[in-house]
Amino acid sequence: MKEIMAVIRMDKMNVTKKALTDAGVAAFFAREAQGRGKGLVNAMLLKGAAKGYEEAAELLGEKGRLYPKRVLSAVVHDDQVEEVVAAIMTVNRTGKPGDGKIFVMPILDGVRVRTGEEGRKSID
Amino acid sequence: MKEIMAVIRMDKMNVTKKALTDAGVAAFFAREAQGRGKGLVNAMLLKGAAKGYEEAAELLGEKGRLYPKRVLSAVVHDDQVEEVVAAIMTVNRTGKPGDGKIFVMPILDGVRVRTGEEGRKSID
Amino acid sequence: MKEIMAVIRMDKMNVTKKALTDAGVAAFFAREAQGRGKGLVNAMLLKGAAKGYEEAAELLGEKGRLYPKRVLSAVVHDDQVEEVVAAIMTVNRTGKPGDGKIFVMPILDGVRVRTGEEGRKSID
Repeated sequence: MKEIMAVIRMDKMNVTKKALTDAGVAAFFAREAQGRGKGLVNAMLLKGAAKGYEEAAELLGEKGRLYPKRVLSAVVHDDQVEEVVAAIMTVNRTGKPGDGKIFVMPILDGVRVRTGEEGRKSID
Repeated sequence: MKEIMAVIRMDKMNVTKKALTDAGVAAFFAREAQGRGKGLVNAMLLKGAAKGYEEAAELLGEKGRLYPKRVLSAVVHDDQVEEVVAAIMTVNRTGKPGDGKIFVMPILDGVRVRTGEEGRKSID
Repeated sequence: MKEIMAVIRMDKMNVTKKALTDAGVAAFFAREAQGRGKGLVNAMLLKGAAKGYEEAAELLGEKGRLYPKRVLSAVVHDDQVEEVVAAIMTVNRTGKPGDGKIFVMPILDGVRVRTGEEGRKSID
């Protein structure tokens, strides 16, 4: 199993969620974060993200800003990684700075709490 | 060392925290997230989670909903994994959809910032 | 590539962000969390963290408290790990309980969504 962690624009959450569901990913979770990549980020991203904006303002430092992002984590089977990464890219790629990043991380084991199913079965 | 990441019901945070402490886990942290598993989730989970509810409502898409969850991460020694996973399951298993999932991930190294202790000692 | 995850004091976010930027780390993100280490934590940490305080109060259980922390994740090249960990320690070490912890985790692959660049290039 692998964790696919995607740092994406806040307004791409719903299309990404749909893309994951369409790709057969059953279990995932999302969280708010503030982040930055290497490039400049269009400040218009902040539009409509009132809470995030305050956060970002608070986090202003001498160098760089952090922008509100969504971090989405999906746990998938090894043979799903390529398809799921492609699905996330398709709906998140605008070609402008701030499109985000996707990282793949190892998961050693999983358990579905309700049934006690382990390993592969925990996410089937 | 391993990270044990548990996605649990919001109202199971306190009993899980106590279970971890009883199991000798010294260091852990929790964060809010929105998530979904494969099964249907009882909407009553949302009761009393006003902020979470708004979040969930916001996140409604064409397919599926995300529900407010807690994500708890504990970093433990290899020989603690089995006991800690069992402890989390014991207090979180209701047998109903939404009980959550537990994932085990590798940690390569750790440092306690205050003392500079590394590796095993960083979490002892 | 490695993920360096640092659980730090809330008021150390800006200096840590600057330290990371100075160390050449291009991409990182931060999130709020509640956490505890083994030692006692100075309650004065809570000063000025109104939202976090409520969270912490909510999370009070029979054993232990969780305190508001920042969790910062940076994805770096293997040969940057030592320098980045040292940089985080330098600005976060006060010698008092609550200084936090740093963990190093494996990243198998990365993709920059805007360009499709993979592996090393995803974070260059």
